[in-house]
Amino acid sequence: MFHKFHWPLGFSAAGTAAGVSYKKGKKDMALFLSNFPAHGAALFTASRVKAAPLIYTQKAILNTRGLVRAVVVNSGSANAATGPQGYRDALETAKWASRGLKLPMDQVWLSSTGVIGPRIKLKNYRKGLKSLLGALRNAGTDEVRSAAEAILTTDTIPKVASAVIKIGGVPVTIWGCCKGSGMIHPVLRGPHGELHATMLGFILTDASIKSGPLQWALEYVADKTFNCVSIDGDTSTNDFVALLANGASGSPEIKGRRTKDYHLFREGLFKVCDHLVDLIALDGEGASRLVQIFVEGARSEKSARSMASVIASSPLVKTAVHGADPNWGRILAAMGRSGVPFEPRRVKIWIGDTLVCKGGMEVPFSDQKVIRYMRNKRIFIRVHLGLGPKKSQYRTCDFTGQYVGINAGYRT
Amino acid sequence: MFHKFHWPLGFSAAGTAAGVSYKKGKKDMALFLSNFPAHGAALFTASRVKAAPLIYTQKAILNTRGLVRAVVVNSGSANAATGPQGYRDALETAKWASRGLKLPMDQVWLSSTGVIGPRIKLKNYRKGLKSLLGALRNAGTDEVRSAAEAILTTDTIPKVASAVIKIGGVPVTIWGCCKGSGMIHPVLRGPHGELHATMLGFILTDASIKSGPLQWALEYVADKTFNCVSIDGDTSTNDFVALLANGASGSPEIKGRRTKDYHLFREGLFKVCDHLVDLIALDGEGASRLVQIFVEGARSEKSARSMASVIASSPLVKTAVHGADPNWGRILAAMGRSGVPFEPRRVKIWIGDTLVCKGGMEVPFSDQKVIRYMRNKRIFIRVHLGLGPKKSQYRTCDFTGQYVGINAGYRT
Repeated sequence: MFHKFHWPLGFSAAGTAAGVSYKKGKKDMALFLSNFPAHGAALFTASRVKAAPLIYTQKAILNTRGLVRAVVVNSGSANAATGPQGYRDALETAKWASRGLKLPMDQVWLSSTGVIGPRIKLKNYRKGLKSLLGALRNAGTDEVRSAAEAILTTDTIPKVASAVIKIGGVPVTIWGCCKGSGMIHPVLRGPHGELHATMLGFILTDASIKSGPLQWALEYVADKTFNCVSIDGDTSTNDFVALLANGASGSPEIKGRRTKDYHLFREGLFKVCDHLVDLIALDGEGASRLVQIFVEGARSEKSARSMASVIASSPLVKTAVHGADPNWGRILAAMGRSGVPFEPRRVKIWIGDTLVCKGGMEVPFSDQKVIRYMRNKRIFIRVHLGLGPKKSQYRTCDFTGQYVGINAGYRT
Repeated sequence: MFHKFHWPLGFSAAGTAAGVSYKKGKKDMALFLSNFPAHGAALFTASRVKAAPLIYTQKAILNTRGLVRAVVVNSGSANAATGPQGYRDALETAKWASRGLKLPMDQVWLSSTGVIGPRIKLKNYRKGLKSLLGALRNAGTDEVRSAAEAILTTDTIPKVASAVIKIGGVPVTIWGCCKGSGMIHPVLRGPHGELHATMLGFILTDASIKSGPLQWALEYVADKTFNCVSIDGDTSTNDFVALLANGASGSPEIKGRRTKDYHLFREGLFKVCDHLVDLIALDGEGASRLVQIFVEGARSEKSARSMASVIASSPLVKTAVHGADPNWGRILAAMGRSGVPFEPRRVKIWIGDTLVCKGGMEVPFSDQKVIRYMRNKRIFIRVHLGLGPKKSQYRTCDFTGQYVGINAGYRT
């Protein structure tokens, strides 16, 4: 599958099994490297409890105003809730990486995911770094695949997407990979302030664009993609998305946020992120199907999104989807508790193409037809509030006994 | 078990299998009757989608200023999201009940629970009413048990509690029963305004107390009991708690809210409601254990409660409890996303008596000891924020594969 994706110029990547994770033999460290100085943008978890590597990275971004060359990621060990010692450990690993790569320390970003609480295994991390540096020398498609695999934890598939756009007639590639299967209800924010993910995303592009507009584009797109997916409603301490742009395509610089090129780039970025989010929902822990929830006819996009989020997080909606039960009453009940004002008598609800509720009441429909539809791998639930022109969507998955199995035994 | 509870003077109750529910042969209608005029207090779901019987009851309370004689309850059919027809159906059933009981219509309250969407089966409801009226003639302990059973849906045990207090030297009895196993995250409010449950609760007392102070007492107590329990985070369209006081004990009237008698009464009411909530959490759908979550050292009770609510609703915390996994990192992660400001470095977390996290970090503890503790039927999780003197608690249960099984096939 990795051959079918476009890879941006001037980047390399590698993955290795370092023994940092509690899972023996699993690839658990990845390195993404730009061969040229790159501009970076990033989003961090909005959680009050933030992993040490993210605190480090946030400072690095502020120090360099977004100049970046490399991102080192480990899975299986979150280095979160580890106190001052955890922060010293993060600094140590950044130092090793910067020496090995011969880069200024602030241009190396760190990211992690895994069990919260324990210290990172420094010895193994260091060995892992060496192995990654070795692998980079001849890095090709296999090494990219290794990197995309190394960031995974409970995921069952690697998650990769790419897009090619043209800026000033020059092809520009945007490539991204992500991980995320549980503890997924991202609330990512910019390094300075506000936005909502352990979802990790690493996006690389050979476009020429400075950190400012790059950050705007990432926040805009994340708010419609990464911030609109929920597996279990639990927001992580380690959610992180990094976007690196190194200009290696030779395309003209993308300036401002009102230019045609900026919009072209943002569209391409949206395509990549939207695809990644789709893969996250499809691969939700224990999930057997993806559910796309559309809330339309709202007074504001914000209210549409917050209602979509509550429907997407409802265990009763998600178990009904699992049972292929067209129990629209649970959808309406979730809407009712969302805190968003609406009039039940104006509400319409569709499952797939079938109108199942109108005026807040059941309309006659073929149970059998909808049940058959609900057995698909991907189903659509659409709600219309009849109040205004605004809309939003949220992706989620069904809630299964497997989810419980995976999470009742995660550490053991 | 029903013999061990105290029953208040001047009340009778009955239950019957009317065929209103989708479950064949299950008792599905109950009647609670005061033989004397009684003062009533009530709490309703805060959902925007409110069942027709509750809309009717809310109006009845406003019309009579809380004078009440009877509550008719049916399970298995919510009469919610049924539009104007649903409301006409509710009116019709109230009319039948008031005629049968020879009472003014406004003194008969209605309540319901069950599948959202379908119309109530009026013919069966009417037959059920007749059967209830017949049963009332010789009502005793068996009929009380029938009533407590008839309000149940997915519950596996009837839920009853009672307390006896002394007002002016006269024994006063408070008896309550409730139902609630899934779609439990009550947000009950008073008939006029604000508070948070399909949790149904019916509380009967022979105390002499008017609707005003009765409502204050109920709101105060519900806020610390019914509004502090979550099975699945889903708030219902039908949540309802009724409290009837008929003065049949002959005790002096409880006046105001600053009197000693008022506080004695409120304490007794708290005892009954607290016991009922315990039974709800113990009998949560698919649950194998009850979890009591205490948040202490907070700046305000409200912030303590909202953090406790987020921890109690976290699927990752609840699956870890199911797996008896002392994964305190998930507790801290849930705290982090709760929206309540706190300093991780001031945080302490106990599982049972064992301190597992201090200063936001792991402290050495015996994994085996905590795992053994977590296999109990009831476990305590205590969080201290180190910020102030305020505290709150929330009750929940573990999250199991059975929960998914129950709810993926609820209608079929």
